[in-house]
Amino acid sequence: MLVPLPFSIFYRDNQHWAFLISSLLTLSAGSVSLLLTRKFKEDIRAKEGFAIVTFSWILFAALGSLPFVISGSINSYADAFFETMSGFTTTGASILADIEKLPKSILFWRSFTHWLGGMGIIVLTIAILPFLGIGGMQLFKAEVPGLVVDKLTPRITGTAKILWGVYVIFTVVQVLLLMFAGMDLFDSLCHTFGTMATGGFSSKNSSIAYYNNSLIDFIIIFFMIIAGINFSLHYKILTGNFREMFVNTELRSFLLVILTSTIIISLQLFFDQNYSLYDSFRYGLFQVTSIITTTGFATADFEKWSTSSNVILIILMFIGGSSGSTAGGLKVIRVILLFKFAYNELKRLLHPNAISLVKFSDNIIDEKILLNVSGFFVIYIAITIISTLILAASGSDFMTSISAVAATINNVGPGFGKVGPTENYGHFPDYIKWLLSFLMMIGRLEIYTVILLLSPIYWKK
Amino acid sequence: MLVPLPFSIFYRDNQHWAFLISSLLTLSAGSVSLLLTRKFKEDIRAKEGFAIVTFSWILFAALGSLPFVISGSINSYADAFFETMSGFTTTGASILADIEKLPKSILFWRSFTHWLGGMGIIVLTIAILPFLGIGGMQLFKAEVPGLVVDKLTPRITGTAKILWGVYVIFTVVQVLLLMFAGMDLFDSLCHTFGTMATGGFSSKNSSIAYYNNSLIDFIIIFFMIIAGINFSLHYKILTGNFREMFVNTELRSFLLVILTSTIIISLQLFFDQNYSLYDSFRYGLFQVTSIITTTGFATADFEKWSTSSNVILIILMFIGGSSGSTAGGLKVIRVILLFKFAYNELKRLLHPNAISLVKFSDNIIDEKILLNVSGFFVIYIAITIISTLILAASGSDFMTSISAVAATINNVGPGFGKVGPTENYGHFPDYIKWLLSFLMMIGRLEIYTVILLLSPIYWKK
Repeated sequence: MLVPLPFSIFYRDNQHWAFLISSLLTLSAGSVSLLLTRKFKEDIRAKEGFAIVTFSWILFAALGSLPFVISGSINSYADAFFETMSGFTTTGASILADIEKLPKSILFWRSFTHWLGGMGIIVLTIAILPFLGIGGMQLFKAEVPGLVVDKLTPRITGTAKILWGVYVIFTVVQVLLLMFAGMDLFDSLCHTFGTMATGGFSSKNSSIAYYNNSLIDFIIIFFMIIAGINFSLHYKILTGNFREMFVNTELRSFLLVILTSTIIISLQLFFDQNYSLYDSFRYGLFQVTSIITTTGFATADFEKWSTSSNVILIILMFIGGSSGSTAGGLKVIRVILLFKFAYNELKRLLHPNAISLVKFSDNIIDEKILLNVSGFFVIYIAITIISTLILAASGSDFMTSISAVAATINNVGPGFGKVGPTENYGHFPDYIKWLLSFLMMIGRLEIYTVILLLSPIYWKK
Repeated sequence: MLVPLPFSIFYRDNQHWAFLISSLLTLSAGSVSLLLTRKFKEDIRAKEGFAIVTFSWILFAALGSLPFVISGSINSYADAFFETMSGFTTTGASILADIEKLPKSILFWRSFTHWLGGMGIIVLTIAILPFLGIGGMQLFKAEVPGLVVDKLTPRITGTAKILWGVYVIFTVVQVLLLMFAGMDLFDSLCHTFGTMATGGFSSKNSSIAYYNNSLIDFIIIFFMIIAGINFSLHYKILTGNFREMFVNTELRSFLLVILTSTIIISLQLFFDQNYSLYDSFRYGLFQVTSIITTTGFATADFEKWSTSSNVILIILMFIGGSSGSTAGGLKVIRVILLFKFAYNELKRLLHPNAISLVKFSDNIIDEKILLNVSGFFVIYIAITIISTLILAASGSDFMTSISAVAATINNVGPGFGKVGPTENYGHFPDYIKWLLSFLMMIGRLEIYTVILLLSPIYWKK
């Protein structure tokens, strides 16, 4: 919270007190927690892991919203919490109608929550959740750099440092490239935070469309794809293991989905919407990348595109990026596993007594993992349906309801209908904002983490 | 096809030639098949089972559409095939705008396809599909009256006779009750066929709303619920095993879902739509029952109800009735198993090394069955999404696309948007009609059967 201070001073926006007071309050909260937990010296077990992860995220959002509230930039606490949860979960859904009138330092903080959230997510999905038995990453247990899976605490710092190093390198390169393309330092930082964390908060009301600059579009497209790829894969490639780039099944599928969707949507833009061939490709690729990586930047009001383009974009929201990236959604690896698994079930019908196994990149996938992924899918769909129902009951139309749920649980940001790319989440009643904040967290923490905490079995002696 | 003949003669509608010619053509097709297959005397294995079931259904629809075409009641073959497939799969989706102008005997044939389809489905889901490893019914293998599971052919006739007996008894009782309530014999027969088969074809343009008669509504509600219950359970109850009625988990859940949904929707009707309390209950219960049993009769234009009522009805479409009934959808038992299974996965996260098992009515469910049901769910969702995309690409709006798919794959009939209860499927281009006909069949034959035939593995030597 001290990072935005220099911007406050530079832009003379008089928000320094807001950040100083927020920092002090956060420091106090941290110190109290530290004092209270000092006597617990035992090893952390999986069971405590779920609670620590969930409550940290809630605490982060609760404290992170202080600058918005104290500065008076956002008046309602439900709104401020929503905006901050949206930041830390790298969702990018906003309750603000006019972003540009915010003080610069507050705007910086808003984007900075994305970047911090992204750091947390990388370590969470690559180092912590697999230890808790969650996430597609179990498959890669042995492949994570510097991580010994059976003990959580000892090597986690090492893993975190390596992955954050990669994250920082990409961030610096993108900032420099955006400045080269014509953005000033402030906007470059904000948009880089939004890109590398696949968040989507922009410092402009009209998002990336504001610039209408091909070079900027393609720089952001490139780094959105980077951010949607597993960071331990990046580490391998950066340390010279180029072969991995071509043999990794999840990466290849991820790129293939982007390519196919871009072709279909670009053709529709070209034939139905009178875009030029180049613009069809540019806008199509940008939006496909932005949605599948769950970033949520916009260069066009994609809601006005054809219904089938919209349906494709909604499907991409649910697919999401790669495991171990900052992207949300089901994750490409889970989608692949679900398909392979379903195909395997067909095989089993045909040869009920033969043993048929699901393989992934030459590894045989244990039935326990298949059950884990299927269970994940079932809970995911159930939460989506129930939440859609609650939104509909609150008075929203069907498209708004389903896309607001899809855009928050998958950490995308903008949806369709009344939460389309040119609109925001401000009009919802408070209880819907709390529900959507909860969906952002639940999606970000890979469902199981939070749902388990809410189950009676967790609290049984 | 000779059954509608007396009606043609009685109503003097001059369609006797249409039925005679159709019968002759069908007889020829049957004789040729019999001659061609006479030399195959070996036991039928599972592999052939899938093909026999799928191709029979296609052949039934292809031949069953002859009276519509020959009589000139439906001009396009795509339309006639759609209507007949909708009949035999007990879907009830129609391409006809004005039903009442059809000759009476043709109208009778249309409803009769429901009843015949229903007969086929009961035997299919209780006796044949479990043998092929498909359907929630595997759980009840031992409970099916007169069926020895390891051999398909010997006892199937016995099982069929018992179940059809139950089906005929209910049919006769409903016809008599409807006549007592004021319908004539013809309409009683048509609506009973539509009810017992959970089909939904009516002989009136405005469906059951035409009568605006409480007694008729409640008679049909009662028999829709009956038709949505497992027929082997009916057999048990009819033969004196009343205990089963109270301990059967699927039955209790099915009734509980109906009750809960009715309460929610009735309250919305009472508070938002200015229905009287009695009417709220009457219309709410009718529509909930009609949709969850995938019948599709309407007593009101439910599309005009609130968005959340609509979302509940769409959810009910996917849940569907009980296994072993004539209803479509996922089936209550699969939904229960999916939830139990997901909850079990949560338990496993908490105690990774403990053995935790999914139980159903005191039986331990084998992991293979859980994988089978999950695989079913994945394929189901995938087909729904892809089909919605194709409908959207054909130019339909989102609500029409998703509800037309939901209403056909779940064998419901009417949906929302342009396929709402006061509209029909006639406006779709032919290729969409073929797709929807295919979805009706795929849903009816429990997905796996048809999908397996389309997989390369089926045809591999």
